[in-house]
Formats: sequence, structure tokens, C-alpha cells
Amino acid sequence: MAEYRRLRVALLGAGAVGSQVADLLLRHGDELADRAGASLELAGIAVRDVDAPRDVDLPRELFTTDAESLILGSDIVIELMGGIEPARTSILQAIGSGADVVTANKALLATHGPELFEAADRVGASVHYEAAAAGAIPIIRPLRDSLAGDRIVRIMGIVNGTTNYILDRMDTEGADFADVLADAQRLGYAEADPTADVEGYDAAQKAAILASLAFHTAVPLDAVYREGITTVTASMIEEARAAGFVIKLLAVCERLDVDGTESISVRVYPALVPHSHPLASVHGANNAVFVEAEAAGSLMFYGAGAGGVQTASAVLGDVVSAARRHIAGGVGVGESTRANLPVVPIGHVTTRYQVTLEVADAPGVLATVAGILSDGGVSVATIVQTVEGDEEPTARLIIGTHRAAEQSLSAAVAALADSSVVERVVSVLRVEGE
Amino acid sequence: MAEYRRLRVALLGAGAVGSQVADLLLRHGDELADRAGASLELAGIAVRDVDAPRDVDLPRELFTTDAESLILGSDIVIELMGGIEPARTSILQAIGSGADVVTANKALLATHGPELFEAADRVGASVHYEAAAAGAIPIIRPLRDSLAGDRIVRIMGIVNGTTNYILDRMDTEGADFADVLADAQRLGYAEADPTADVEGYDAAQKAAILASLAFHTAVPLDAVYREGITTVTASMIEEARAAGFVIKLLAVCERLDVDGTESISVRVYPALVPHSHPLASVHGANNAVFVEAEAAGSLMFYGAGAGGVQTASAVLGDVVSAARRHIAGGVGVGESTRANLPVVPIGHVTTRYQVTLEVADAPGVLATVAGILSDGGVSVATIVQTVEGDEEPTARLIIGTHRAAEQSLSAAVAALADSSVVERVVSVLRVEGE
Repeated sequence: MAEYRRLRVALLGAGAVGSQVADLLLRHGDELADRAGASLELAGIAVRDVDAPRDVDLPRELFTTDAESLILGSDIVIELMGGIEPARTSILQAIGSGADVVTANKALLATHGPELFEAADRVGASVHYEAAAAGAIPIIRPLRDSLAGDRIVRIMGIVNGTTNYILDRMDTEGADFADVLADAQRLGYAEADPTADVEGYDAAQKAAILASLAFHTAVPLDAVYREGITTVTASMIEEARAAGFVIKLLAVCERLDVDGTESISVRVYPALVPHSHPLASVHGANNAVFVEAEAAGSLMFYGAGAGGVQTASAVLGDVVSAARRHIAGGVGVGESTRANLPVVPIGHVTTRYQVTLEVADAPGVLATVAGILSDGGVSVATIVQTVEGDEEPTARLIIGTHRAAEQSLSAAVAALADSSVVERVVSVLRVEGE
Repeated sequence: MAEYRRLRVALLGAGAVGSQVADLLLRHGDELADRAGASLELAGIAVRDVDAPRDVDLPRELFTTDAESLILGSDIVIELMGGIEPARTSILQAIGSGADVVTANKALLATHGPELFEAADRVGASVHYEAAAAGAIPIIRPLRDSLAGDRIVRIMGIVNGTTNYILDRMDTEGADFADVLADAQRLGYAEADPTADVEGYDAAQKAAILASLAFHTAVPLDAVYREGITTVTASMIEEARAAGFVIKLLAVCERLDVDGTESISVRVYPALVPHSHPLASVHGANNAVFVEAEAAGSLMFYGAGAGGVQTASAVLGDVVSAARRHIAGGVGVGESTRANLPVVPIGHVTTRYQVTLEVADAPGVLATVAGILSDGGVSVATIVQTVEGDEEPTARLIIGTHRAAEQSLSAAVAALADSSVVERVVSVLRVEGE
């Protein structure tokens, strides 16, 4: 093996991803050295509890509880602790001491990304985070580098494996949300507290990261509109299928013209996706990111969105990149946020909608409903009426609208809910990918 | 707009891609400057004939026939002339004068890549070539950077849009190769001389580039096994469909263990792909690259494989990367070819096969055929027999084999061709992606 400069690599965290990263670094060290042009020496693994059980058997002498000392003597710091603190402080320490940083911490990047990138920029260090969005799927470099000469129009991503797994099983089995969630928890596809996944918080963090890169704009997490999938029912999925759609939790990042001002919208919600769209065929816990760019046209990136060893692949790719930069000299490439486009609230977004209502099965109801929508500036494209019950019959109206602004649609739906002919607004779903 | 350092960009060639690159550089200059952190000044466009008609209207004063003077005064040189010379000499001049290079020249990279990379390495320049494989699809950075910490097992790529368009239409319409080719030429999907596409030369160049990156090994073009699609008939496609397959021209790059030595195989041929495989759904002139890696699992990259403006997107992404490197200082990241794995000939490759024979419709034929295969070390998995003709009936045998080494299979097929019971070997197709 060639003689390479030795780089000291600090690993912070030894959970599902961290233990796999350590294992692969130790097992494939020579091969990685050949690729990086530098010998990657795992200097230590900082953890809270040295004796905690790990997924992988690792040399005990690598473990330490003193993260700070480990960081200060290292060339590359891999942060896999998750959460905001102490991850944020550790990364700032690493940057301050001249190390390059690799992190998979989407929560931290979505909330404190600009602070970290500015700190790195000041000293010429680099921050790598391929694993922070869509797991093993290479999406960060394509957005930041490969598409840097293009204008991205729209990103639609299935970026949360847990919710895709749940929705896919609901679609396949006709099962209800709660049953599939319970089974997903039993099988390890969903966590004991599934809130971050099923309420869309995880997807919203990834959406903020993707939109920031795609639109060269620092997108704060609280600018991301978010709905989860807990309200999706088996009958909504059934109705969607009948209309030619599948329901997917999408992260949508879109360039918009709002009254002549170039703007962006970033939003996460369960949406109706036509069966013919490539995202409709993304099954199980897989992820996919569909990108539309002015020059490149439509691109799709598909793969495993999570999993310890899959995510470790993305982390190690970043470690090799960080090592190459450390050897090559020069400053790291900073984030480009100079476009600084305004992020508009959901009210400005225009899509088609599918609105399902329970109404009294009486003459004139259809005309009243259509009138309310029309008065609200929402134009109806299709109405399907089904009647259920024998004694006091209730009709179900499934209304497909033409494109309408969210603010018009929600005002019209509120008016429908108040109307005497509407018994219940069953669901309001947006259509994406037509 | 911020004050940026000005970088002089030279463009060599103004064909379908070049004219789009120039147009986008001129139209989106401010936006690209913000992303690159440098002002990108199109210093000139070197062409053979200043007065030739172009796809896009460009300022006449930019054109020159003096490529050398243009190159020597530039910071970034974009080579889009195609072919080996004078492209090779121009790139070496650019590197020698301290410029970073962007090229989409797959023929040059597949034959002279190592020479160019070594020249760049000596002076710390960078060579970018995202557009050289799979057009607008970001695949170079994912392979070189994102997956640099992983071990790629196999790449299967639909990397030639023309042949995918032809095969897809043959599949959809049941039409014959020659008819669809003629129509594709009329519609601009195939060139007047279609040899480079339909005989697989273009795909072989891309396969060499992808394999070099994936396996950190300089793969020479003549080590790539190549078959085109000119022998594919409507009835082969029909038989494939009946057996659950679609025929795709695939570039396969595979890591193999040959007698205990880690080796690679790089090959291009029309293969049977199961309908359930994601590559089977890649229609029209689109491209897709399916990557299997030890840790990351299965990934797919999908998009437009060709087209002037699509390819220009990839070129401009590289221009922004080159500018960032030029500003950041340090040396460019060189190619990693230190694994230097042996490339084995096709004979060592193991796949399943589908062999179609015309045989006399007589007793004992089946046993004779099975015996010849078995003697040759090829195990039969399925046989379907169909009988055609009335007076002198000819049977067609469609034989699916178990996995066999190519050298055993071809020897057995030669023995079948010599056998008295076989009238004609209709086709031999390999199965990929099971």
C-alpha cells in the first residue's frame, strides 16, 4: 500500500449509523485510503455511555466520553449524535479547530444550517451532509453541484421511508392507518414514538435542506408548510385509486411567480399522485426525489431512504470527499444562498384539489355545493356522487377542482363546512405531479 | 450584484450542446455568478467556420477560428468539439496553461482519459465531465464522490437514448428494427449514420467511463465487450415478452470473483430484463443507471440521456464547479484509479441465457438438444416448444438456462449449430437484473 498522509477521524455517536460507519472505516480502511489519497485513522468514538450495547462489535479502546478532546485532535469530525445540542457545539468546535465536518443531522441543518455554514466559510472548512436527506440516495451533490448551472423548477420527494411504507401497505391491503402503524412499529419500520415521521416533521426538515440547495436560499424550517398522514384513511386511499391516484407523503419545493416576484414554496403533505407518475411506483420504505429543471428536464433519484448501513454509505462518501479536500488544500466550497428568494405561505400555492364531502341526498344539493365553490373562485372539473345508507341516505361527493389558489380553496371549503347541505368535509387532498 | 472575481470562459465548439451552453451562460450570467462566487465571462467560442448556421442566435463577435489563443487566455475551457483531435490537444493546452477543463467528450475520455487526468494531476487542475455519460443525469459525481465510501457491486445502465427509443417502439408496436430505425432517423432520434448508437459503440464508451469511476480502475475502451441491437427482431421481442422480459441495450459493469481474484467485467449488449425491474419501465429516449452497492443497496438515476439543452445543463453544472475550484484554490480532485482491478473477457461472465432454436419437429430432438447443452456444462431451466408450418413442420425451442459461464454457453451453442437436429440458432440473449 502506498504511503499516505494520515488523517485523524473522530466519530461522534455510535448508534445504528455510527456503528456501521466505524465498522466500514475499520474494515475497508486500505481501500478508502486509496480513494481518498489519505490514510483515514479512526481516532476515537465519542459516546455518552461507553458500555451501552452496539449494533456492531467495535474495539473498546476506541470509545470515549470526552468528545471535546477527541474533536480537537482530529482532521475530520463525523457528527452522528443527532439532535441540536451537543451536536451544534461539537460541530462548531470542530470547525474552529480546522477540521472538516461530516454530518447526517437533518434537524440541526434545518434549524442551524446557516450558522454552521458561515462558521465553516470563515475558516475555509467544509461541511458535508449527503446522508441528511434521502439516506443513501445521492441527492445533495446533484443539487449543489451537478445542477448548479440550471434553474430548478420543482422538487417532489418521497423522503420519509416510514410514511411511504405505511401508505404503501394501506394501499396494497386496504388497511387502516392505525393497524399498519402498529405493525410497522412491531417490524421496526416505525419508532415507538412515531410523531416525527407520521406528522411530517422529518420530511419537513429534509424539504428545508433540499429547497435551500435547489433555490440557493436559506429556507428556515418554520417556513415549511407541514401536514402528516395521520388523517389518511383506507377509504381516502380507495377513492384516490378509483380516480387514478395513489396517496404519497410528498415534500414539494417549487419555484413560483407571485404577483411578478420570483418566490418559492416548500411544503409537506399527503398528496394525490397520478398512477402514471414515476413517484407512484415507489414502494415500501424506499425514497425517491423527482427533480424538474429548466434545461435538464425531469430527473429522478431512487433508493433506500434509511437504514444504518445504507446511511453509512453516504456518510463514508462524505468522509472521502472531506479527506480529499483536506489533502488538496484550498478552502471548502461554501453554500450558495445568494438568490435569497422569499418563501411564500401555503395560501399562495396553486394546485388541483380533490374534496370529498358527505351531503344530504336531496335535490339541489349539487347545485348549492357547486355554487359555493364557484363563488369562492374555485372551478369544478369533475364530480362523482355515491349514495350510501338506506333509511336516511347520505351522499358522498368527490369533487375534482381545476387549479386554484390554496387560500381560495380553503375559504371555499370553510364555506362548504358551514353550509346546511354539507354534513361533513371528509377530506381535502392536493394533486401533485400531473 | 456583488463584485466577483472575473473568470474567462472559453467555449470550443458550437453544435447542439455548445450553442445552448453559450446561450445559457449569456442569459443566466448573474445567477451563475452568485452560485459560483465568480463572474463567468464568455471570452469566445472557437469554431471551424464562423459563418456556419447555429441552433441559437449568438453574438457574432464571440466567434473565432483561433482556438489556441482563446484557450491560452482563459481560466475555464469547455471542450464540446467531440472526437479525438483536435479536442485532445486543446484540452492538454488548457491544462498546461492553468485552466480547469469541462468536457462532454465520451469518445476522448474512453480512449485518452488517463492521459488527460494525469496531465491535470501534475498541475493540480480539474477535469469535469458530468455530461459525458447519461447526458443530463447526474451520475459522475454520485459515483466519484457520494459512493466513494462504498463498494459498488454492479451498474446496469440504459445509457443510449437512440437504442432505447428504437427498442421501446419495437416493443410497443411490434415493429421491425429497420422500420423503426428509418422512422427514428426521420424524427431526429437517430443520426443519418446510426452505427455509433445501434452497434453499441456509444454505450461502450460510457460503460468504460462509468466502470472506471465505479471500480477505481482505468478501464480501456477495448476491454469493453460490445454487441449492438441490429440483430434484434420483432419476434425476439415478442418471445421475450411472453417470458416476462423486455429487451434493453444495457451497459453492465460488474465486480466479479474469478478464481479468487477480484476482477471486473464491462459489457454492452441487448439483454432480457424482467418486467418487474425498474429499468424495464424506462421508455422512449430516456436513460437510467441502476447501481448496486454493498452498503447503499440499490439506487437508480433516471432522466433525459441526450438533447442539446439537457446536456448543456450538465456542462454548466461543471462550469460552476470548475469556477468554485478556481476561486477556492488548492488542487483539483484527481481520478482515483488505484484499485487497478483486472478487466476479464466476456467468457468469464456468468448469467442466465435464453436460447432460441429452429429444430426439426421430430421425436428425440428435445433430448438431443438437452444433451448437447448438458455435455457443455449448461443446465436447462425451462424449454418452450412451438410448432409452425404445415407440410414440413419446424419447431421453435425457447430454452432458458440456469446461470452459466459465457465460454461454456458459447461452446454449447456452437455445438448446437453443428448438430444435425438444429436448423438454425435464432438468438442467444443474456438475462440481467434478476
